[in-house]
Amino acid sequence: MSASSWFTLRWNEGAVELLDQTRLPEEEHYLRLDQVEDLAQAIERLSVRGAPAIGVAAAMGVALGAFNSMADGAEALRSELETEVIPRLRATRPTAVNLFWALDRMQARLREDSGPAKSGADAVRERLLEEAQKILSEDIQTCHQIGQAGLEVVEAGARILTHCNAGALATAGYGTALGVVRAAREAGLGVSVLADETRPLLQGARLTAWELQRDQIPVRVCTDNMAASMMQGGQVDMVVVGADRIAANGDVVNKIGTYGVAVLAQAHGIPFYVAAPLSTIDRSVASGAEIPIEVRDREEVARIGNRVVLPEGVEVEQPAFDVTPCRLVTGIVTEAGVLRAPYESAIVAAFQDS
Amino acid sequence: MSASSWFTLRWNEGAVELLDQTRLPEEEHYLRLDQVEDLAQAIERLSVRGAPAIGVAAAMGVALGAFNSMADGAEALRSELETEVIPRLRATRPTAVNLFWALDRMQARLREDSGPAKSGADAVRERLLEEAQKILSEDIQTCHQIGQAGLEVVEAGARILTHCNAGALATAGYGTALGVVRAAREAGLGVSVLADETRPLLQGARLTAWELQRDQIPVRVCTDNMAASMMQGGQVDMVVVGADRIAANGDVVNKIGTYGVAVLAQAHGIPFYVAAPLSTIDRSVASGAEIPIEVRDREEVARIGNRVVLPEGVEVEQPAFDVTPCRLVTGIVTEAGVLRAPYESAIVAAFQDS
Repeated sequence: MSASSWFTLRWNEGAVELLDQTRLPEEEHYLRLDQVEDLAQAIERLSVRGAPAIGVAAAMGVALGAFNSMADGAEALRSELETEVIPRLRATRPTAVNLFWALDRMQARLREDSGPAKSGADAVRERLLEEAQKILSEDIQTCHQIGQAGLEVVEAGARILTHCNAGALATAGYGTALGVVRAAREAGLGVSVLADETRPLLQGARLTAWELQRDQIPVRVCTDNMAASMMQGGQVDMVVVGADRIAANGDVVNKIGTYGVAVLAQAHGIPFYVAAPLSTIDRSVASGAEIPIEVRDREEVARIGNRVVLPEGVEVEQPAFDVTPCRLVTGIVTEAGVLRAPYESAIVAAFQDS
Repeated sequence: MSASSWFTLRWNEGAVELLDQTRLPEEEHYLRLDQVEDLAQAIERLSVRGAPAIGVAAAMGVALGAFNSMADGAEALRSELETEVIPRLRATRPTAVNLFWALDRMQARLREDSGPAKSGADAVRERLLEEAQKILSEDIQTCHQIGQAGLEVVEAGARILTHCNAGALATAGYGTALGVVRAAREAGLGVSVLADETRPLLQGARLTAWELQRDQIPVRVCTDNMAASMMQGGQVDMVVVGADRIAANGDVVNKIGTYGVAVLAQAHGIPFYVAAPLSTIDRSVASGAEIPIEVRDREEVARIGNRVVLPEGVEVEQPAFDVTPCRLVTGIVTEAGVLRAPYESAIVAAFQDS
């Protein structure tokens, strides 16, 4: 991202600024949000999305709540954040675990006893902003590490299929799956991307194609139902996707359609990789079956722009995510290296090392 | 369709009338086309689509050309139709074989020597219209026979996944894949349909859902990339799709995405049936690899209504069809019964019997 003139989200003078992803690729419009409620709604309507980016946004939301609070004692501030701000942010989206991971981290920082000299409300405010900024900069750094780790599994000239957007737009910058792509380009491997458009909200067509084009990385788009045909025709060398939550056994919850791509990849002998930070791994859930899957609104399928594409009264299926069983995953690319099956022990080892 | 107040296409007082499928489900608008060129363009822009319906439309186009011709001798009329009208209609779309089948049949009727008394230009005109009407009514009858044949493979309460629209809207009426569904409903089997929306042109959401809702047959819609997840969750008992062309070995060319559904069905142990008239089987091509696949315009993917969903300059893949190898096909439901592997001999036998 260093060469690009855009950013996913940042803190700027008492507000969170973020690129409104619902308006891409038609408009490059930044929102400036100075109220927690506005930020929470921006997360809910997917103006900012992608598991790591949601985590960063929520952390900044806690800092925002702290600066907006009228509390003049550390205790009052802590109470307000814990009973109002953090629960509001926690309720925005249920599936991506980075949201909860980031809020837990902010809460731990909030509760930290920093001694009498540092315990005033303003000191707490500064501490929280510092932590949110740290989560943001660590996220970018982690993405670069994921990209480097991914070099181990990318061959020169690889045509990489990806689903949804696990790019700079889904993180604080650089991306997870697209971080692997960027690192491969920077290493001179000459890779190119085939992006599934990813109905219903078309993150592949609208976002992945947009950010890769901005970075002059070769990208073509296909509708989701063309991926099988592209694989059949020998046009796909590997699949790399992101993740919203990974269970302790390596099952991967990611954008709806990921599971289908994984089945198709296996049927065609194509390696299927997941790229995600360790913060996406939720060791408290044994398998994918335990992870709550967000169900979104019918209108996201039924209407596109001014076009009604579904007869009134016809119902839709609208899970936003699906579960890819670990047996279909060739490897999980993390900042701690590429994890391989059996994932349960590989994950335990990765957390011990990190 | 008998209870419905709509029709796919018909001949009415010197013109072809058809329901404009590009405007469904928002508007139920009938086009009245009295020029061959207008009809050809209606086929090209998919106002009428679906392999059998294209065949019927093209046959009516020949009749239209005959009635519009100023030729006053049978020979002059024949020459005009063979050098202008039939070639124009033949060039509309390359993949669905029913188009060529219907035009060949019209041409044979045109060349038929019916004796001096019947050989005037007006007699030829009447003969051609009669043949086009016969192709239409036979198509409806064939669809009913396909539906009856399909009862052999449909279980009570089956939840049937279909892709694109192989319904009354894709035929002169009743449908092929949806003919099986209608016959099963009429037989009291209580089946229901899960329709893939079928990007890019959304025939599943716009057309399949519309016509099933009109006939009060239970239907739900899912985006193409949700089908795998629905199968994984045990929500699909069988797949029934139509076909645009079937090769002598049983390979099936159908709407893009069909191949992916077939791979997914096999991975989940779900039977995958193709429903099509014998006129969809092209014994002149040995395998699916020989069938030309139409490539359609980038704009069909890049723009939906007023919404631009792809950044300018980003290229797309846009094959309109794919090839499902015969090994993935559980059976082909035709008016001559359900054909089973090995398809090569089953197809030969079906044509001998018919």
